[in-house]
Amino acid sequence: MLNNKKLLIIGGDARYLEVVDKLAAEGATVFIVGFDQLTFDDSNIRQTDLKKVNMSVIDAIILPVAGTTTAGEVEATYSDKSIYLSEELFAQTPEHCIIYTGTSNSFLDQTSASTNRRLVRLFNRDDMAIYNSIPTAEGALKLAMDEKDITIHGSNVMVLGFGRVGVTVARLFDSVGATVSVGVRDSADVARISEMGLNPVRLENLEGEIGNMDICINTIPHPVIDSKIISAMDNSTLIIDLASKPGGTDFEYAEKVGIKALHALGLPGRAAPKSAGRIIGGVLLELLGK
Amino acid sequence: MLNNKKLLIIGGDARYLEVVDKLAAEGATVFIVGFDQLTFDDSNIRQTDLKKVNMSVIDAIILPVAGTTTAGEVEATYSDKSIYLSEELFAQTPEHCIIYTGTSNSFLDQTSASTNRRLVRLFNRDDMAIYNSIPTAEGALKLAMDEKDITIHGSNVMVLGFGRVGVTVARLFDSVGATVSVGVRDSADVARISEMGLNPVRLENLEGEIGNMDICINTIPHPVIDSKIISAMDNSTLIIDLASKPGGTDFEYAEKVGIKALHALGLPGRAAPKSAGRIIGGVLLELLGK
Repeated sequence: MLNNKKLLIIGGDARYLEVVDKLAAEGATVFIVGFDQLTFDDSNIRQTDLKKVNMSVIDAIILPVAGTTTAGEVEATYSDKSIYLSEELFAQTPEHCIIYTGTSNSFLDQTSASTNRRLVRLFNRDDMAIYNSIPTAEGALKLAMDEKDITIHGSNVMVLGFGRVGVTVARLFDSVGATVSVGVRDSADVARISEMGLNPVRLENLEGEIGNMDICINTIPHPVIDSKIISAMDNSTLIIDLASKPGGTDFEYAEKVGIKALHALGLPGRAAPKSAGRIIGGVLLELLGK
Repeated sequence: MLNNKKLLIIGGDARYLEVVDKLAAEGATVFIVGFDQLTFDDSNIRQTDLKKVNMSVIDAIILPVAGTTTAGEVEATYSDKSIYLSEELFAQTPEHCIIYTGTSNSFLDQTSASTNRRLVRLFNRDDMAIYNSIPTAEGALKLAMDEKDITIHGSNVMVLGFGRVGVTVARLFDSVGATVSVGVRDSADVARISEMGLNPVRLENLEGEIGNMDICINTIPHPVIDSKIISAMDNSTLIIDLASKPGGTDFEYAEKVGIKALHALGLPGRAAPKSAGRIIGGVLLELLGK
């Protein structure tokens, strides 16, 4: 329970409706800014704006997944008003106030440092990344189903990378009945992939193994699907790149040779906003309850 | 191998391109009618029309999934011409010639009976129904992902019926991480569902169990999701009815109370036409090779 906590949520999209509800349900008093197009029933939820909030009682500020712009502007899906953060605002909070954001930038780094407030980047956390890998993998599955005229069951799928997202993607496609290969460098990963009954492929041998794949899903944030690998692919192979910008695919080359390549970013918020919101709320709940 | 077989494929959709290719690749001579908008490279594939075919050498006639209209017309996706079957046509075939169709009707029943030709309804076969349950289940999964704002992983899913389609649907949603209940009448089914680690529900207790389901997937071709069951559902429950027309859902009542209900028919051809075609080709290959 968060009975004595006073939280300030500034901006956010559909996911943050779950966050607001979850934290209020746990007994926190949740002041919200940037949701003026909506109404809430829970008496723990207080619509307000930045000029009216008594910052001196706020235990934590919760910012959207994208944080702010470098000018300090916060995006709020459910408001037409502009919302800007500032050093003054942070300085009015009690010293123990923690700023939670999805991702950070120079503005948030500097403003939290100069006001000596702790800044927590939720999306840097392992637990968040692992939970988020669930809607990410489901989003990739849905994309594959949308794009291919074959079933996933019985298809040949190459997953590149075996980190927090790669493991989930490989397991999901295997569960659905695909024949899954996983491209990695590390010997321990090769062993684990074998133990799981999947087919490990050394990345240095990728070119020779990619030819009979129906789908290739990349999770490695480096140029791994280069022109050489793309040239070795069958024309019908679908590339789904989940690695953050700029991705690991030579998209220009793929387009040139007529191989479909999708850079699929932000899948949790797109494929399952409610679950994605519950994940953020769940991790925040754990952090705030400590 | 089908080296000495002479087959006549009349009409069909994208699935039948796979059928044509598969049977030709196995060495059969495949005469095709109703594909005049396309060209084929394989020398075993012969474009023709019904007036030109030497029916006396044809070992098997293969008709589309839907068979014919009651007037004997065959639908051909890749032709603008009208194609009509007739008793005369069947009578010109050798006595051993078998007519393969997806489903039958009065025209095909009568015409095959009066000409004493064997008529095989492919979609009545258990193997076909089980193979087809794969793209059907994947199509239902895709629909669920399209419609829900939560992940399938962690969701509560009720599958009604545990026949050829119900088993596959229950297993697929379980594999993806849903908590799956299965509604049945038969005690042996209850035992098997328990053995598989799923949650069996007696259909007579469905009303009490349906309240916390995110998704309800029906495979029973009887009125099972009636107004009483729908009234016991949460407003956010999604109904996906896979049972053939008219389905097992009171769609009118569902719409009246604002519960989304989709009657999802023909999913294999829509979700994965290539796989669906391979399935038809595979079953035909087995039957023709005997």
